[in-house]
Amino acid sequence: QTFSLPLFLLLLLPYSFSVPLSSSSAVDPGGRTEYRISDPTFTCFTHLVVHSGTGDIYAGAVNQIVKLSADLRLQAGHVTGPVVDNNECYPPHIVRPCEHSLDWSNNVNKLLLVDYSGDRLLACGTKWQGVCMFLRLDNLFKLGELHHRKEHYLSGAREGMAGVIVSDKDHKDQNHLFIGAAVGGKPKYFPSLSSRKLVSDTDTPDMMSLVYQDEFISSQIQIPLDTVAQYPNFDIYYIYAFSSGSFIYFLALQLDTELNEGGNGGAEKFYNTKIVRLCSKDNRFHSYVEFPLGCTKDGVEYRLIQAAFKQRAGKKLALALGLGENDDVLFVVFAKGQQNRSNPPTETVLCLFTLHDINKAITDKVKSCFRGEGKLSMPWLLGKELPCINTSATKPGRTWRGVV
Amino acid sequence: QTFSLPLFLLLLLPYSFSVPLSSSSAVDPGGRTEYRISDPTFTCFTHLVVHSGTGDIYAGAVNQIVKLSADLRLQAGHVTGPVVDNNECYPPHIVRPCEHSLDWSNNVNKLLLVDYSGDRLLACGTKWQGVCMFLRLDNLFKLGELHHRKEHYLSGAREGMAGVIVSDKDHKDQNHLFIGAAVGGKPKYFPSLSSRKLVSDTDTPDMMSLVYQDEFISSQIQIPLDTVAQYPNFDIYYIYAFSSGSFIYFLALQLDTELNEGGNGGAEKFYNTKIVRLCSKDNRFHSYVEFPLGCTKDGVEYRLIQAAFKQRAGKKLALALGLGENDDVLFVVFAKGQQNRSNPPTETVLCLFTLHDINKAITDKVKSCFRGEGKLSMPWLLGKELPCINTSATKPGRTWRGVV
Repeated sequence: QTFSLPLFLLLLLPYSFSVPLSSSSAVDPGGRTEYRISDPTFTCFTHLVVHSGTGDIYAGAVNQIVKLSADLRLQAGHVTGPVVDNNECYPPHIVRPCEHSLDWSNNVNKLLLVDYSGDRLLACGTKWQGVCMFLRLDNLFKLGELHHRKEHYLSGAREGMAGVIVSDKDHKDQNHLFIGAAVGGKPKYFPSLSSRKLVSDTDTPDMMSLVYQDEFISSQIQIPLDTVAQYPNFDIYYIYAFSSGSFIYFLALQLDTELNEGGNGGAEKFYNTKIVRLCSKDNRFHSYVEFPLGCTKDGVEYRLIQAAFKQRAGKKLALALGLGENDDVLFVVFAKGQQNRSNPPTETVLCLFTLHDINKAITDKVKSCFRGEGKLSMPWLLGKELPCINTSATKPGRTWRGVV
Repeated sequence: QTFSLPLFLLLLLPYSFSVPLSSSSAVDPGGRTEYRISDPTFTCFTHLVVHSGTGDIYAGAVNQIVKLSADLRLQAGHVTGPVVDNNECYPPHIVRPCEHSLDWSNNVNKLLLVDYSGDRLLACGTKWQGVCMFLRLDNLFKLGELHHRKEHYLSGAREGMAGVIVSDKDHKDQNHLFIGAAVGGKPKYFPSLSSRKLVSDTDTPDMMSLVYQDEFISSQIQIPLDTVAQYPNFDIYYIYAFSSGSFIYFLALQLDTELNEGGNGGAEKFYNTKIVRLCSKDNRFHSYVEFPLGCTKDGVEYRLIQAAFKQRAGKKLALALGLGENDDVLFVVFAKGQQNRSNPPTETVLCLFTLHDINKAITDKVKSCFRGEGKLSMPWLLGKELPCINTSATKPGRTWRGVV
């Protein structure tokens, strides 16, 4: 059931990369450039993105966003917090006065994306149940902040958010933001996965509303309340999202309902890393499919995803793996085991997957399920473990849709 | 030459009021309310203003502005820093790239005023050579920030700014902001004292431009470059500004050119507290007059102003001082002596002045000067110490104008 590939590298990587507290950038004798931070109140970075055109680096942290040049010189900064807030207030206190007392709270960056067609940076934080803002790419001036509608509150959870922007060829001024978010115990208020409109005009009221919504179906997946009733800790922590070919993918940590069956009291819960795939043009999320992902080294399983990055294989790697240069590969760092999600073991591995193999494994599984073999393996979403049923009339193709 | 009045109270007050680091508001057994701060990175408050209508309290600090209810509950906050900046960059790096490297810098609140007719808060800081922003009074959301024109950079000095807003009866949508600012060694770039347009529309390009400006005269006073050439440390640190009757007043610490004559090398410089008066309708600053202010207790002089507040006398005080209830009085805290401005002695006194006495002393001095008695006593502005000249033809009245 798990999909593993040869191990390429072994690394020790903490999830949040912390840097020493000193000052400015410098090149050490080995030719490496360092960015050192002089602010003693600085805590840690949470996200990093490199602009594909300029090479500029944008990093999200607790209470700040920074822009560094390719040689790691500080170019601009934007403070995003602390903010006067209370995470218990839903809706946020800026919408309606809240019975909980307010205090200064950190605003932890949860999502940082370059919106290339909008020529701006999208940064979402923990502030006010998870609001996002747009910043100018050159000086990080704020272009706008989204806190006017219910859809703008993405989730108050401190972590577990990932997103990817895909262009909508039918609408020149509109892209789609696929976003996954841990819901932090509030599945009624926040979708786990959704597709939002990303409009070029920052002030458009429609900004961040669901791409599709009718009476029954919408561009979102919510964690069923029954699942949360049965597993109060159930949540999906999205770590990374990317697009490849005609699909978008999420990598996420999911509470393993099977291993936690019957409840194990106060003991550490078990988690599984899943790769989620959707057709990027699927506005109704019919093509949702998920698949476990992990690595094995010396007989030990590594299943707690820490970080990931998708990249074109390039010449050398393509040659070594028998791929085309432009084929996508996926680097994933896993920590050992399936427990201690919030404080993972320091033993980690870096694994390489090809998108070709991932897609083949997913298609194989889907095909066998259509033949009536195996299980659907999404009890958290379907309410229970359902067996696959032979439906030979429908034949899935390359862009197959419709497990749910 | 100095104007002193009986001492009423003795207090020990540091200039920046620091509070213990803990959490939330509480009423102690003595019935006093405390606001305690939980943020360990908090440094100190620099300014405080109470809204005359709502009783809400607004406080400016390093990197933040807070709003407290009358019972000291935290209601809203706005982070203003740190910012990526370098105080040496003039113009600020957001206008033109700067040769100095940028780093995270504190944004110290230097001015905090309620703009009642604009229904907004005006907050100026050290950021980018001293820019101001407008915040909503209810939730401290930013309405706008002024950093588009040269006039918006008020001064990069870390302290020494004060201001007062007066209404302009000729223009319904426009008030005047009288603002005094230490220039921090840049007298060419920043006026010491100026009167600015305060327009109701935050985005008006005219915002904060000088109220009057022609080829020769404008609503500002600049420290002459000759004065700075002779006294490199010369500056005027404005501590408090207020309006009373048809005048506006500033209280400021000024380098005492006479006592520092000949230079005393690395020794501590001497300062004097001055009260500055202008007619509030005087757009050309012809009515500028300044007068030393201080207190004596047990034969010891207290001349370093730390803080001040103007208030209506009220019933009890009016009775005790033989004033009208609506007459203005001025409370001033001075530290001992004339030296160690930046790290003043902890021995301080609180003195009470009546505006009636202050105005009488100023008028007496002006009248005697018109009779040819005494000196003009503004060598820093006039280039040297000039004797008063008998000009009996011109007779100053109650709203006398024209020392400069």
